[in-house]
This record gives sequence, C-alpha cells and structure tokens, in this order.
Amino acid sequence: MPTTPQTPITLSRIALGMWRLDSWKLTPPQRLELVRQALDLGITTIDHADIYGSEQPFGEMLALAPSLRDQMQIVTKCGIVLRQQPSTLSVSHYNTSRAHIISSLENSLRQLRTDYVDLLLIHRPDVLMQADEVADAFNTLQQAGKVRQFGVSNFSPAQFDLLASRCELVTNQVELSPLHLTPLHDGTLDQCQQRGIAPMIWSALAGGRLFNESSERAQRVRTTLNALAAEYGTSVSTIVYAWLLQHPSKPVVLTGSGRLPVMQEALAALHLTLSREHWFAIWCASSGTPVP
Amino acid sequence: MPTTPQTPITLSRIALGMWRLDSWKLTPPQRLELVRQALDLGITTIDHADIYGSEQPFGEMLALAPSLRDQMQIVTKCGIVLRQQPSTLSVSHYNTSRAHIISSLENSLRQLRTDYVDLLLIHRPDVLMQADEVADAFNTLQQAGKVRQFGVSNFSPAQFDLLASRCELVTNQVELSPLHLTPLHDGTLDQCQQRGIAPMIWSALAGGRLFNESSERAQRVRTTLNALAAEYGTSVSTIVYAWLLQHPSKPVVLTGSGRLPVMQEALAALHLTLSREHWFAIWCASSGTPVP
Amino acid sequence: MPTTPQTPITLSRIALGMWRLDSWKLTPPQRLELVRQALDLGITTIDHADIYGSEQPFGEMLALAPSLRDQMQIVTKCGIVLRQQPSTLSVSHYNTSRAHIISSLENSLRQLRTDYVDLLLIHRPDVLMQADEVADAFNTLQQAGKVRQFGVSNFSPAQFDLLASRCELVTNQVELSPLHLTPLHDGTLDQCQQRGIAPMIWSALAGGRLFNESSERAQRVRTTLNALAAEYGTSVSTIVYAWLLQHPSKPVVLTGSGRLPVMQEALAALHLTLSREHWFAIWCASSGTPVP
Repeated sequence: MPTTPQTPITLSRIALGMWRLDSWKLTPPQRLELVRQALDLGITTIDHADIYGSEQPFGEMLALAPSLRDQMQIVTKCGIVLRQQPSTLSVSHYNTSRAHIISSLENSLRQLRTDYVDLLLIHRPDVLMQADEVADAFNTLQQAGKVRQFGVSNFSPAQFDLLASRCELVTNQVELSPLHLTPLHDGTLDQCQQRGIAPMIWSALAGGRLFNESSERAQRVRTTLNALAAEYGTSVSTIVYAWLLQHPSKPVVLTGSGRLPVMQEALAALHLTLSREHWFAIWCASSGTPVP
Repeated sequence: MPTTPQTPITLSRIALGMWRLDSWKLTPPQRLELVRQALDLGITTIDHADIYGSEQPFGEMLALAPSLRDQMQIVTKCGIVLRQQPSTLSVSHYNTSRAHIISSLENSLRQLRTDYVDLLLIHRPDVLMQADEVADAFNTLQQAGKVRQFGVSNFSPAQFDLLASRCELVTNQVELSPLHLTPLHDGTLDQCQQRGIAPMIWSALAGGRLFNESSERAQRVRTTLNALAAEYGTSVSTIVYAWLLQHPSKPVVLTGSGRLPVMQEALAALHLTLSREHWFAIWCASSGTPVP
Repeated sequence: MPTTPQTPITLSRIALGMWRLDSWKLTPPQRLELVRQALDLGITTIDHADIYGSEQPFGEMLALAPSLRDQMQIVTKCGIVLRQQPSTLSVSHYNTSRAHIISSLENSLRQLRTDYVDLLLIHRPDVLMQADEVADAFNTLQQAGKVRQFGVSNFSPAQFDLLASRCELVTNQVELSPLHLTPLHDGTLDQCQQRGIAPMIWSALAGGRLFNESSERAQRVRTTLNALAAEYGTSVSTIVYAWLLQHPSKPVVLTGSGRLPVMQEALAALHLTLSREHWFAIWCASSGTPVP
C-alpha cells in the first residue's frame, strides 16, 4: 500500500474525453482555445489513454500555455497493446506488468509534456493481472510524484475487488447509456456506491447510436428522450447527461466532443433533475418492459 | 446506523400472504375468522405491501379485535409507484427516497390501524436508491417506534450488500419454487445463509403454474411431485412447502391462500423432511438434467 | 473453526489425476512403477474422488510400498451420490451432511490404505449444504488427524465465500482449458488470487476435445496451438499446460494420463513462459474475437 499521504483529487462531473482529438484536425492554437473554453465552463477533467493518439497533440497544446496544467485533472490509461494487422500469433492484448505500466506512463508524461497525471487507469481487465505487481507499480509511480491516484476501467466487481484489496482505487470507468444498461444491474454501480467511489461513464450517447440507430430499441428510446426534451425544454443530449448524472454513485460523465455547444448541452444537465418517473421512463424504453 | 437497541422479531416459518385478500371478498368478520384460524395454527406472520390493496381491509378487521395485534408480526413493503395506464412519460417506477419511504409507511400504519409494523421491506431494487438516505429513513422510523426491523425484496446479492453496508437488514423476500430455481444458484440464498438471515419466499407454488402449466418442464415437475406425494402419503402442496423449508437458509415461506385446508397443507410441511435424494429429484425434474 | 494448528501442505504444480486409473488396466506392480515415475518427476500430488473407483486400486499399490505415502499429497473428494440407473425418484444427488462427509472419508482411507489424506474436497456445490455442519465435520476429521486441509470443487464465488466464512479452504478445483474459459471471467479465479489460494484445474485438455473436436472453435484453437508449438519448439500439450500454469492464481494443473510421455509434456510447461501476446492469442482463438 502507498506509504505517502495522498491528496484526493476532485474531478469535474462533466469530463472532456480526448479519444477523438486527433480526428478533430485542430491546430495547436485551436486546441488551446478548446481547452480554455472547457476549463472556463468548469470541465476541468481531461480523459486520455495511451492508445488514443491524443496525448501528443494535447501535450503540444499544453506547451503553449503550461500554466493551465494545474487548472485541470489529467486522466490517462494503460494496459492495452494494439496490433493493427492481427494474425494467428500477433493479436491485440493486455499487459499490466510492472514494467509495462511504468514505461507506458512515462511515455504518456513525455507526450503530454507534464510531470504528473492526476489519475492513471488500467484500461481493461487483464486476466493475467498480478494484483500485487500492479499495486507495486502504482506505489512506485505515486512515490515518484508521477501519478496522484489510480483507478480501473471496464472492470467487473470481482476484478475490482481483487485489485482494490492491494491498492486504493478511486474509480471504475465503464460504459453506460440509455442503450447500455448493464452496469446498473450487474453490481458494478452498486459496488461504486457501496465503496463511495465515483464511476466515470464512457459512451454516454452510445457513440451516436442514440441518434441514428434504426433498431426498435433505439427508436423507443428516442421517442422517450424527445418527449422529455420537449417536457423539460432542453435538448436530448442534456436529458441523457442528466439521466446519467442522477445515478446515486455520482458519476463523472465523459463528453467526447470538441464542439462548444455539445459541451454546453452536457453542462446544462448539472442543473436539471429528472423526476423519478421520467428517469424510469427512459429505463423502460430501453428495456422494452415496465419495471418488474 | 440505528442507535436504539433492536428487539429481534421472530417470524413464523409459514406466513400468510395478503396480496389477494381483496379478491377473497370477505366481510370483516369473515376476515377476522380467517386471521384467528391462522394465528391458532401458528401462522403469525402476515405479509402485506402498500400496493396490494390489503392494508385497508386488514385494518378494518384488526379494528374488530385490536388485542390480536401483538400476537402477529405484520410485514409490509414500499417503494413501487404504480401507473395503471402507462404512457411514454407515465410509467410504473420505484421511489426509495426518504420522504416516500416515510410517507408510505405512515399511510400503511393508518390503513392497517396499528401503531407499528414489525418488518418493512423495500419492495424492489431501485437503481436510484441512495443507500444512506434509505438507512436514514429506516433509522427515523425505528426511533419513532413505527417499524421494528427492516429488509428488502427481490434484491440481488450486490444490491443487498450495498444497503446492508448502511443499515441492518433481516431478510430478502425472493421468488423461489420448483419452477423458479434462480436464487438457489445466483448467490442470493448463499448470501442469506452466510449472513445468518432467513429469506422469505414468495410464489412457492409458482402462482398455480405448478398445477396447470402445460410446459414440458411443469409436466416433469408434476410427475415427480405426484410420485413424492404418493410416497410420503401427503399432498403435492405439502411436498413443495417441505422442499422450500428444507433449504439451509431456513426460509419463511408465504402461502397466499385464505382457505384453511391450504394453510394446513403448508403447515404439514413443517413435520415432513424429504430425503436428500427426493429433494434433488424435484431439482432434476425442474432443471431437465441430472445434477452436474 | 479448527482449533489445532494446521501444517500447510504444498502441492506440486502438476498433479496426477486418478479418475481414469481403473481404465488403465494396470497390475499393482505396474501401478507402483507409474507412481514412482511420477514422484521421481516431481508430480507428488495425487487426485482422487470417492466416486472415481481409483481409491481401491491405488491403495492396493500403496500397500506394496507404504514408505511412499509421505512423499505424496493425496487429495480426495466426497459429496456426490451416484445412481447408475436413475428414475423419477432415484437420482444422482449431493450429500454434504456431517455423517456422509465423515463416513465417505473414512471409507476413502480404508480404500487408500492410509491413515490420512492431505486434502479433502467437497466435490460439487450442494444447494442443501449447511455450512456450519460441513465446518464441524471438517474440524472433526482434522482433529482426528484424518485430513490435513480442506477445499471445494466447482464452487461459484458466492458458494466459496459462504463455506470459507465457516472454515479454512485452501483450493477450488475447477474446469479450465482453452475450450472452457468461464472461470477466467466469472470471478472464480479473481477470488482465488484475492484470497491467495491456488486453484486446481481439471480437464486441462478439455477431455481430449482440444485434439479431436470438429467445431470451428476447436479448429481455431488447434491452429493457434499448433503455431505456438512450432514457435516454441514443443508439443501442443506443453503449450496448453504453460497457458494454464501462467495464470496469476498459480494453479495446480491435473494431468489425467498414466503415460510417462504425457506427464513429461505437462512438466515441460514448468520451464516455458508464453509471451503475453501468445497467451492472448489462445484466448482470442477460443473466444472468436479480439480482446475488447
């Protein structure tokens, strides 16, 4: 277990996901403008991963305004090793060895042009994970001042319990949306509430499927979301973010857009509380059944 | 956590489920006769819910013989809000807010014409449940002498663990029958035994499907139950109640009938022990496979 | 809980499964030769069950060389009651009553011609298991010096937690192979690692299906295993054993063959470490998907 005192970090309830940063084709000054806008709006948590291709362009931007560093919480992830052209013996895989975690994080620091990240997550549950070894790597990084706190992503409750038995974890970043209800019912978010840790939510808008998927389920959900948007006089996106933020585990919700209006729609959800009946109307539309 | 000492309540192994009370079309004196018979037989636990429509007629009966109150344990439930004619934005939903729990229980007390219930259950797992808030509501009700103990119904092990981390729960009322084996295998009853709490069992006879469903599974189960009834010289219902009572978590089993012979068939199970082989014969008939 | 100090036993990483011993049609001296070879190779853990029919012929062999007893760890199991010709009321079932556990173990000792076994396992999770009663039986057997340590087989994490809350368990013997990935993902092996207990693995080669099953899945797995065998210059069996031994829960893997070359292939895996990428190549071939 870490022996140095930990300063708890505070994440913003809406966080900026950087996984598409590269595709936004922004110049470094445009990136800086985007991040300044986000910070001004209170979106201070910035979510990366070693495999997003976002760290280098983000670091390039940060070099233009190093004083911004302390105004934000930088999250990054490690543990996935990608193979672009897989073959029988060459496959994308996971690596949570001590050496890989440390070298991945150190590379992230170089790309991001910062001395530390606020939060480092193990990106996917690795069945070969040696919990003691991960805890040791975390401790080393924390002692060196390179990472403030640690978490995981996409872990089942049993996987979370295992690693949390060896080190302190402050989040589990999981997929949740009106088209993906699983963590509401498989113990993942119950565990977060029980342990008093805030999950982070990815794919809040189901990667856009909420707006364009033609399945009956997506159509039912859209009908309900549209009715609620009219009822509350706001956008469908705001309804979805409110629906997520309202979970009692107090999630941090990622928004993956670099467009200001989209960020504002997410932020508007902080001031919107759905009635319980309306919250469940979305659940029922997604489930295709009344509550049991 | 509650700060006043709790007097543990003792439930009868067979409990009288009131969910169909209204449909029995009894006059208040007939209801009184029924309850007296049940108490005389040792069925002292009476199971209600705010949504059963049973509290008002039961209270009407109790007003005729208030001295019976201390001879029984009254269980009721809250947390479901029904909508009879659901629409897109008007759906049946759950509400486990502090305000709802307290007002629902207070309404139950008025309907039941009693000062307290022995056991209050959260009727369904509410994904919006704030465990601290529920515990606070429970504590308030207990301090006020309005509820003696608390439990849940239809909770998964993870949901139970979450709420039990904040307050004392003495039961999980779940569905179990020869046509619904799930809680035997998904950790629910293992958790009860591990924690030393007795589950309550609803739908012991699968809502009558044990007797009239035409599926192959129901036919297999009926064949085995009939053979066992002959073997032990008793009724099929008695066999089923014995099968349930024999689970090592020591369940309290609800009977949902107001007919004296049916209650007697349930009670007869308290004096019947199936051999392990016969217990598993029912399990195999239901599963359609030998044990692994 | 046991009140006498326990001497932890050490199992060999490769263990000799005896479930087919009877079918090998060996004379007692041939059996002795086999066991001597295994012990010489470092395979010192011998796995039986009351229902394998292996205890009597093994005991016959052991009587020829009683001094071998202390050089091996004998594992046996109890709890399954078989019916060869099942009928409606006569079915194979489980029995984990105190009386059955004790009489089954005492019969095993007589068959094995030994005073003690090193490890006794409950063979299958019995939904009628009274955890306190099992713990009491275990304690009695341990106090009497008849069993050194205890474990289970095929238990879910919830079932394991239940029994482990009443007595010390040192293993969970489960099925795992490239054609059966379940315990990697359902919490079973996470629990083993968290608790610091080594699982035992049965059916490492999927009962031979790895070599002869015609399903697409088995063909994909064979293609990958063959490529790895060529890559590492070893046999497919050695690749599979290495793949299993590499799990961070440090499993003990059973080999079910009485043929020396097969034992040697298993043992060779102790000196082979697959790269993480190659480990996941097998996982991917079995899953039919890349890692998520």
